[in-house]
Amino acid sequence: MRVGYVQFKPRFGDVKGNLARAFALMEGEDADLWVLPELFATGYLFDSREELRELGEPVPGGHTTRALLGFARDRGVYLVAGLAEREGDKVYNAAVVVGPRGFIARYRKLHLFGKEKLWFDPGDLPLEPVDLGGVTVGVMICFDHFFPEVARTLALRGAQIICHPANLVLPGMGQLSMRVRAMENRVFTLTANRIGEEARAGEVLRFTGGSQIVAPDGAVLARAPRDREEARAVEIEPGEARDKRITRYNDLFADRRSEFYDL
Amino acid sequence: MRVGYVQFKPRFGDVKGNLARAFALMEGEDADLWVLPELFATGYLFDSREELRELGEPVPGGHTTRALLGFARDRGVYLVAGLAEREGDKVYNAAVVVGPRGFIARYRKLHLFGKEKLWFDPGDLPLEPVDLGGVTVGVMICFDHFFPEVARTLALRGAQIICHPANLVLPGMGQLSMRVRAMENRVFTLTANRIGEEARAGEVLRFTGGSQIVAPDGAVLARAPRDREEARAVEIEPGEARDKRITRYNDLFADRRSEFYDL
Repeated sequence: MRVGYVQFKPRFGDVKGNLARAFALMEGEDADLWVLPELFATGYLFDSREELRELGEPVPGGHTTRALLGFARDRGVYLVAGLAEREGDKVYNAAVVVGPRGFIARYRKLHLFGKEKLWFDPGDLPLEPVDLGGVTVGVMICFDHFFPEVARTLALRGAQIICHPANLVLPGMGQLSMRVRAMENRVFTLTANRIGEEARAGEVLRFTGGSQIVAPDGAVLARAPRDREEARAVEIEPGEARDKRITRYNDLFADRRSEFYDL
Repeated sequence: MRVGYVQFKPRFGDVKGNLARAFALMEGEDADLWVLPELFATGYLFDSREELRELGEPVPGGHTTRALLGFARDRGVYLVAGLAEREGDKVYNAAVVVGPRGFIARYRKLHLFGKEKLWFDPGDLPLEPVDLGGVTVGVMICFDHFFPEVARTLALRGAQIICHPANLVLPGMGQLSMRVRAMENRVFTLTANRIGEEARAGEVLRFTGGSQIVAPDGAVLARAPRDREEARAVEIEPGEARDKRITRYNDLFADRRSEFYDL
């Protein structure tokens, strides 16, 4: 199975341009599963809930999800992509999973970062991995990486690959912790981060790139530069993530001693 | 508060020599709290349960704990040190906490690594931080670092500093994950690893050194070389670990969404 990340520089509010750029990048490389950044179609730095509501879209009926569905069907690929999901009065920092045969699932970010708390509603759906052609895949978004419980829950529920759309701003931290998430759960992790800078509403954010693919032993299989657009995929054997043994005597899941842990 | 690690090369079975070497290293540097490696007094690679039972000691009545108590009293310091604890029919891969006024606590490793499972009994005590002169300190041992629940539980129970006696053999992994344990819990971590090699019972183990002190933001405040003995301490402000905020909007503990996590 070939899995990859799309690292690029969305332009705030230019949904059509951002979709076109992401699709163009993916056309240059073969993959079975692509991960795109958090909020890849809209950009990140909203300045009001009204602006966010305007750029948010229903899922799966909105323009962005329909465009993703078209690409997935035409190219025979799975896509995991972050977008602003509007549903009734709510707007979520969400991610969709789509495939060649249509819409598969949505995830709504459980841990909102910084001013996201002013504009977005907190996620309200369970951490539920999905089956993509026999491979179990979980989704978490950006700052979720800071909470080990998220990757752990997805892995305990069978995820072999954790897809991680991101707009990381703290230098190196997400890259570091996602290596540990892979190691401690013996799963593959796919982080798709964006690059570039947004200056809006009196704030300036610099996104740190460094999208990466990590193996269950913590090895970095691919890492993007900090400042260049790149769609890159590598071949992995997802079955490796079914085996939680790290020595002849240790199975990371069987060795857990839940009765001593707090939640 | 000055906190430090003692990194050295124990010689298997030479309890008196190992104690003397550890004490000599600490005399060269000032600290209020020292962490010593896992099984620092006996060495690591036992070849039978009988050998382990022979080298194991009661706590706090055994030779090693009494020697630690003497050093702590004479120098006015707290010590956290790994040792083989014998109690009745059982032998634990344990750590003791002692201070100027005597014995404080013991911890028994919850997650045994590799052949430790053949010789040691698994830990059976709760993860309970202790108060050392107004600072709350937790203890975990070596491979416990692989399980994010351990540091999390200690931190949720108030630990500001996590002491981590270790005999790490997987290169770089413990150092990496302890940085993430510090970051994700906003605590200080103190890893004391050993160096050198043991060749016994048809096995050869190389210990990786790299003892380290990490701040709540993940910054490495001190790191030992891979192959040299070193006792080193740094000044920290333990109060920083009481503050779990990482942005104006985010408090890492208040932001947890336990209802979505599995245990």
